[in-house]
Amino acid sequence: MRRLRLGMVGGGQGAFIGAVHRIAARMDGQWELVAGALSSDAERARASAAELGIEPDRAYTDFIEMAAREAARRTNGGDGIDAVAIVTPNHMHAAPAIAFLEAGIHVICDKPLAATREEADAIAKAAARSRARFILTHNYTAYPLVRQAREMVARGDLGTIRLVQAEYVQDWLTVETHNKQADWRTDPARSGAGGCVGDIGTHAFNLACYVSGLTPEELAADLDSFVPGRQVDDNVHVMMRYEGGAKGLIWTSQVAPGNENGLRLRIYGDKAGLDWHQENPNEMRYTPFGEPARILTRGGSGTTPQGSRNLRTPGGHPEGYLEAFATLYTEAAALIRADAAGQSADPAVHAPGIEDGLAGMRFIAACIASSRANGLWTRL
Amino acid sequence: MRRLRLGMVGGGQGAFIGAVHRIAARMDGQWELVAGALSSDAERARASAAELGIEPDRAYTDFIEMAAREAARRTNGGDGIDAVAIVTPNHMHAAPAIAFLEAGIHVICDKPLAATREEADAIAKAAARSRARFILTHNYTAYPLVRQAREMVARGDLGTIRLVQAEYVQDWLTVETHNKQADWRTDPARSGAGGCVGDIGTHAFNLACYVSGLTPEELAADLDSFVPGRQVDDNVHVMMRYEGGAKGLIWTSQVAPGNENGLRLRIYGDKAGLDWHQENPNEMRYTPFGEPARILTRGGSGTTPQGSRNLRTPGGHPEGYLEAFATLYTEAAALIRADAAGQSADPAVHAPGIEDGLAGMRFIAACIASSRANGLWTRL
Amino acid sequence: MRRLRLGMVGGGQGAFIGAVHRIAARMDGQWELVAGALSSDAERARASAAELGIEPDRAYTDFIEMAAREAARRTNGGDGIDAVAIVTPNHMHAAPAIAFLEAGIHVICDKPLAATREEADAIAKAAARSRARFILTHNYTAYPLVRQAREMVARGDLGTIRLVQAEYVQDWLTVETHNKQADWRTDPARSGAGGCVGDIGTHAFNLACYVSGLTPEELAADLDSFVPGRQVDDNVHVMMRYEGGAKGLIWTSQVAPGNENGLRLRIYGDKAGLDWHQENPNEMRYTPFGEPARILTRGGSGTTPQGSRNLRTPGGHPEGYLEAFATLYTEAAALIRADAAGQSADPAVHAPGIEDGLAGMRFIAACIASSRANGLWTRL
Amino acid sequence: MRRLRLGMVGGGQGAFIGAVHRIAARMDGQWELVAGALSSDAERARASAAELGIEPDRAYTDFIEMAAREAARRTNGGDGIDAVAIVTPNHMHAAPAIAFLEAGIHVICDKPLAATREEADAIAKAAARSRARFILTHNYTAYPLVRQAREMVARGDLGTIRLVQAEYVQDWLTVETHNKQADWRTDPARSGAGGCVGDIGTHAFNLACYVSGLTPEELAADLDSFVPGRQVDDNVHVMMRYEGGAKGLIWTSQVAPGNENGLRLRIYGDKAGLDWHQENPNEMRYTPFGEPARILTRGGSGTTPQGSRNLRTPGGHPEGYLEAFATLYTEAAALIRADAAGQSADPAVHAPGIEDGLAGMRFIAACIASSRANGLWTRL
Repeated sequence: MRRLRLGMVGGGQGAFIGAVHRIAARMDGQWELVAGALSSDAERARASAAELGIEPDRAYTDFIEMAAREAARRTNGGDGIDAVAIVTPNHMHAAPAIAFLEAGIHVICDKPLAATREEADAIAKAAARSRARFILTHNYTAYPLVRQAREMVARGDLGTIRLVQAEYVQDWLTVETHNKQADWRTDPARSGAGGCVGDIGTHAFNLACYVSGLTPEELAADLDSFVPGRQVDDNVHVMMRYEGGAKGLIWTSQVAPGNENGLRLRIYGDKAGLDWHQENPNEMRYTPFGEPARILTRGGSGTTPQGSRNLRTPGGHPEGYLEAFATLYTEAAALIRADAAGQSADPAVHAPGIEDGLAGMRFIAACIASSRANGLWTRL
Repeated sequence: MRRLRLGMVGGGQGAFIGAVHRIAARMDGQWELVAGALSSDAERARASAAELGIEPDRAYTDFIEMAAREAARRTNGGDGIDAVAIVTPNHMHAAPAIAFLEAGIHVICDKPLAATREEADAIAKAAARSRARFILTHNYTAYPLVRQAREMVARGDLGTIRLVQAEYVQDWLTVETHNKQADWRTDPARSGAGGCVGDIGTHAFNLACYVSGLTPEELAADLDSFVPGRQVDDNVHVMMRYEGGAKGLIWTSQVAPGNENGLRLRIYGDKAGLDWHQENPNEMRYTPFGEPARILTRGGSGTTPQGSRNLRTPGGHPEGYLEAFATLYTEAAALIRADAAGQSADPAVHAPGIEDGLAGMRFIAACIASSRANGLWTRL
Repeated sequence: MRRLRLGMVGGGQGAFIGAVHRIAARMDGQWELVAGALSSDAERARASAAELGIEPDRAYTDFIEMAAREAARRTNGGDGIDAVAIVTPNHMHAAPAIAFLEAGIHVICDKPLAATREEADAIAKAAARSRARFILTHNYTAYPLVRQAREMVARGDLGTIRLVQAEYVQDWLTVETHNKQADWRTDPARSGAGGCVGDIGTHAFNLACYVSGLTPEELAADLDSFVPGRQVDDNVHVMMRYEGGAKGLIWTSQVAPGNENGLRLRIYGDKAGLDWHQENPNEMRYTPFGEPARILTRGGSGTTPQGSRNLRTPGGHPEGYLEAFATLYTEAAALIRADAAGQSADPAVHAPGIEDGLAGMRFIAACIASSRANGLWTRL
Repeated sequence: MRRLRLGMVGGGQGAFIGAVHRIAARMDGQWELVAGALSSDAERARASAAELGIEPDRAYTDFIEMAAREAARRTNGGDGIDAVAIVTPNHMHAAPAIAFLEAGIHVICDKPLAATREEADAIAKAAARSRARFILTHNYTAYPLVRQAREMVARGDLGTIRLVQAEYVQDWLTVETHNKQADWRTDPARSGAGGCVGDIGTHAFNLACYVSGLTPEELAADLDSFVPGRQVDDNVHVMMRYEGGAKGLIWTSQVAPGNENGLRLRIYGDKAGLDWHQENPNEMRYTPFGEPARILTRGGSGTTPQGSRNLRTPGGHPEGYLEAFATLYTEAAALIRADAAGQSADPAVHAPGIEDGLAGMRFIAACIASSRANGLWTRL
C-alpha cells in the first residue's frame, strides 16, 4: 500500500504546529510530505523545503499555484498530492482551504477554522461543493482515553449526562510577550476577534461536545484581557447550557501561572463520573456512583473498542500529544483511501470536520457577543 | 490556665457536625464541654448528655432556659459556660444565637449563618449589641496552608490578583437520598432557600474571599436541581467579579459522582499562582511565573508565619479536617481569654465572624436572585 | 462513663512526641492527663505540669515515686492514674515501664521498645508478670486504611501474599544536625545501637508484618552512616524473607532529600495488590489482577469492617497522623475498661503490644548483625 | 539531506518491539525502512515486508544473505542499508549482530545484549573489529528528563551521590501466561538464564548507572520464580554498592498486580534529591535539601541543555515512550552521518552501546550467581 502524498501550506522554519503536523503524518507510515508552500517568503520557502527533503519543483511560494500544479500532477501521471495540511495563522486558512478544495484535494486544516465567520462560511461552502474531504485537527479528540470516554458516555455508562466541566489553562501569556507564536495569536487581524477563546477555548468546547455527545444551546460569557495593551481576550469564563438540560462551565486562560497546557474534562451523569487531564493523558478516573473510583489506563483493563483503536504500545508505555495528533492523520488516511476505493471506511474511523469548525466559530462569536452584552445568554 | 467551659445547642445522638465540634474543642485542651441542649427531644437530650459526661443538671432541652441558667451560673459562682457552640440545622441558628449573645455568652456557630436573611440580620444586630463574640465555623480557612496562602497573597507573592477559581464538589446527593443529614439539607424550611449553594457554596465563596482578600462585587449564577423532586439547588455555576477587576468562577455541586469533599482553590496573580485542594490539604502548589512549580508542604520549607501558627506536628505528619476545625476553637479561646483579661489578643489570631456570615447570606441570596433572573449580574 | 486517668513520663517542654500523645489522648474524650514526671529537671517538670493543668502534687520529678504514689492513690480513694504514657528517649523506656507495670498500672509506651535487648527483655518479663497491659505506640497501624488493608489481606482479597515492600524515608538528617530531637536519636547511648533502623525502620517493619500477617524469617541488611561523624546508621537496605516464601524489601533513610515522612507500604499477592502512603493516608490503591485499579478512600465505598471502626468523619474529610494516634489511645481505653469490668473487649479492638516491641528489637539486632557480617542472612 | 536506509531483522507480524522500532525510526524523518529479514518463516517474512512497503527483492528470510546483499548494494550503487535494527528474541541477537557488523553495517540492537555471556562477548569482539557502530536501545535513557537528571547529577546539583533507588515493576506475568511475548521471555533457551532480571532489570540497572554516573561494584541479589512452573525469575531484589560508597536498591518484578510499566528512579545526594517515574515521564521532582520540592517539567522552566535537546513540542504537550525511543534513532542518525562525513558529532549526541550491553550482561550474571549463593555479595 503506497504512502499518501501530503502537501503543506505554512509551517516553514520557526513554526510550531507545522512541525507537529509533519511528525504526526510520519508516525504511522501512512503519509509522505512531497510538496509545500511553506512560507510566502520565497527564500524561506525554498530553504524550508530543502530541509524537509521536498523536491525544488514542488517548493512553492504561492498556494494557488501549488493547488493548480498539484491537481494537474494528479491527472497527468498521478503523483500529485492526495491532501494538503494548512498550518498557517487563522486568517490564512480560508484562501488555501478553498483553493485546494476546489482543486479536489483533501484538506487537513488546523483550528480554529478561520479568523472570521465569513471566511468560515466560505470554507464550508467550498467543502460542500467539493468531493474532497475537510478535516480539522481538533487533535485532543484523538487521545485513546478521550475516544473511550465518548464511547462510555454514548453507551450509557454514565447515565444521563448532567454536567460537563471543561478547562484549558495555560500561562505563557501572563505578561506581555513577543515572539512568532505570541505575535499572531494576540493580533486580531491574524487570529480573529477571539484570542484565548479561539486559540484554546475552541479545543475545550470541542472536547466537551465530542465526549458528551450533547448539543450546546446557549452560553453566558465573561471575557477579559488582563495584560495591559492586549488586544484580544486572555481569560474566558463561560456558563454553558446544553440541549436536554445538561449544564457546564468552560474556563480557558493564558494568564494562569503554573499551567502549561492544562486541558481537563470532567463529565458527570446520574450514574457515574469521568475525569481526564491532557497533561497525564494515559489515565482517566471513572467513578460509578457509590463505588470506588477506577483508574482506567490507556490500553489497560477495561479498555473499550474505541479506546483500543490506534494503540501503538501496551498500557504503561505513555503515549502523548504527538500520538494523538498522528491518529488524526491515520484516520484521515483511512477515510481517503476508502474514498479512493469507492468504499465506506470502517464506521469506527472518524475525524473532526467542517461541522466542528463551524461550531467552534459559533462558540467564539457567541462568547464575544455575550461578553459584550454583559454576559447575556446567547444562542449557539 | 483553666479550660474554657463550652455549652452546645444541637449535636445529639446521630448528628455529624456536633461531634466534629466536640473533637475540635477537645483537641488542643482549651475547652471542656459542660452543658448542652443537645436535642429538643427531652429523652434524647438526656441520653446524649449522659454519653458525653455532661452533668444532668446541665442537660437542657430548652436553649432559652440554658442561656438563662448558664448566664446565672457565671454570675453566681462562676462555673457557667464561657461559650456555646450552635450546631443545629440552619433554621435553628438564629434563636439560640440571639439568646446566648443577649446573655453575654460567646457564640461559636456553624455555617451558613442562618436560613433566611431576616434571621441573619437579627443575629447581626444581637452580635452588635452584645459584648460577647460571634464566631462562625468556616473551618476550611483554618488549614495552615490556607492561612499561608492568604498571607502570601497579602504580602504580594502573587502580584496583582487576576483570577480566583473555587470549587466545592461532592457526590452524596447524586440520587434521591433520605437520612438525617440529607433530609434537612434538602428541605427549604430547614436549610433556607439555598441547598448546595448554602451548605457548601458558602464555604467556597468564603475561602475565595478569605485567601484573595478581595471584595466581591457582583455575580451571575445558574442554579439547578438535577435530582427529580429536589426542592433546593444541587448544582451551582457562578461567574464572579471582584472589586478592582479580578474575576473568578465558583462551581459547587452535590451530584458529581467521584467527588467526596472536593474543595479546591486556585488563585492567580500577575506574578504567581497557587493551587490547594482540601482532600490532600498538607501540600499546595506554588508557581512563580517563569519558574518551576514548588510543592509547599504544611510546616515544610518556605512556611510563612501564619502557616506556622497552630502546627501540631512537623511536615509529613498529615493533619486534616479536624485539626483545622480545632484551630478555630483554639483561636476562639485565645480571643475570649484576651477579652476576659481586658487585653488585645496577638494580632495574628483570627477567626471568621458575623461579617463572613452576612457575606455568605448575601452570596446565597445573590445566587438565587441571579439564577431566577436568568443569570443577571447581581450585586453582592 | 468517666474519663480514664493518664500519667506521663517524659514529654516536658520542647518535646515532640509527648505533645502528640497528649493530643491523641484528648481527641476522643476517653482520657484525662492528671499526673506526670515530665522531666528529670525539677523546675522544668514543675513548669511543664503547670502548663498542662496538672495539679502540683501530681507533678513528679521521679517516676519511681510517681508509680508508687499513683498506685497508692488507686487503692486509697481511687483517683490514681489508670495508665501511664512513656515518651522518653529509648534508653529511658525500660525503667519506668517496669516500675509502672510492677505497680499494676497500664503502660502505653513509645517505640522502639528499648535501647537494648536486655532492657527489652526486662520489660517483657515485667509485662508477663503484671496484670497491667503494655501497649506500644506503633501508631501507623491505626490508620483506618491500614487496618482495612490488613483485613483485606486476611480475608484473601489479595490471594497468597508474595511481596511486601515497605519504605520509610525522611530527609531531616541529611546533614549534621543538632537539636533536641536529633541529638538523642543520633546518640547510641540514648537511642540504642540502631539509629534510623530503630527510629523509623521498626515502624516500616512493624507495618509490613501487621498488614501482611506474615512471620518474618530472616533478613540481609546493609546499613550506612552517610553523614560524616554520625555514630548510628542513617540509611538501611534490607532484603526480607517471610515464612512460606514471601519476600520483601525494606528501605529506611533519614538522608534522602525531598522526603518528609515517607512511609509507604505495597503488598502483592497472586490475586491483587495494595499501595498505601502515609503522607496521603486517606486513600489506598487496590488493583485486582486484570482489572482497573480502585482508589479506596477512608470511609468511602468499599470500606471494610476494620476500616470503618474509629472513623470520626465521612470520606473526603482528611484524617491524619493525630487521628491514627488517637485511635490507639481509644483502643487502649476500650481494652482497659473491659479489663476493669472483667469482660472481654470487642474482638475487633486491638493495639500493638510487647510482642511487637520484641519483634522490633529482633529486627534492629538482626539488621545490625547482618550488616556487620556483610549482609549475611540472619534469622529474626 | 537524504534519509538513512534501515533494515530490520525480526519484527514480523505480531511482534511488539519491531513496530516500536519502526515508529521510532520514522518519527523524526531521519530513516526509511527499505529491507528486512522480518521472520525466519518465508511466507510470514514476505507478507510482513509487503505490509511495510519493502520491495520484494529486499524481503529476506535469511539475515546472513541480507547482510551480504545489502553490503553489496552499498558498494554497487549505494542504496544498501546504512544500519540494521535487530529486534529478535535475545538468543537471536548475536548471530545477526555479528553478521552485520562484519559486513560494515551499523547495528541498532534491542536489549539485553544477548542470551548468554558467550554470545555477548562475541558481539563485543565483532563490534571492536568493525568500523560500524553498535547501538543498544536502552530507550529509557532518552527521555528528556532522564537526560536532564544525568546532567544535573554530573554538574553537581545533587552534591555527592549517596543513594540510587531504581525499580521496574510490572504485573503482566502474575499468573501463568501464554502468548508470543510471554512465551519467549519465560523460556531460558530464548531469553537467557535471566527472566525478569534480563528483560526489565537491565533497564533499571542501566538507568541507575546512566543517571548517577557511578560505577557499580558489587551486588547481593535474591531472585524468585513465584508462578508455579516458571523457569526463569519473575521477581528480583538487589542491594547495590557503587564505587565510592554510594548504595542502592533495585527491585524488578513482573508479578506485582497494579503495575503496568512502573520504572522509577530516585537518586539522592548530600545536596538534593530527584524522583522520576516513567509512567508520567514529563515531570520530575527535584528537592534541594531544605527547600520546597520543585516540579521540573519536560521543556519547562529550569530545563538544562541536555533536557532541551530532542524536544519536539513545548512543555505541557506530553511526549512519551515512542518519542524517547525515536530520540535514540535520531541520535544514531547523527552519529552515523558524522561518521560518514568523517567528522565528530556534536559532543552532546550520545546513545547506549556495547559497554552498556556488557554491563547489563554482567548484571544479569551477578544477580543469578549471587542469588544461587544465597545473596553473596558478587562483583560486577
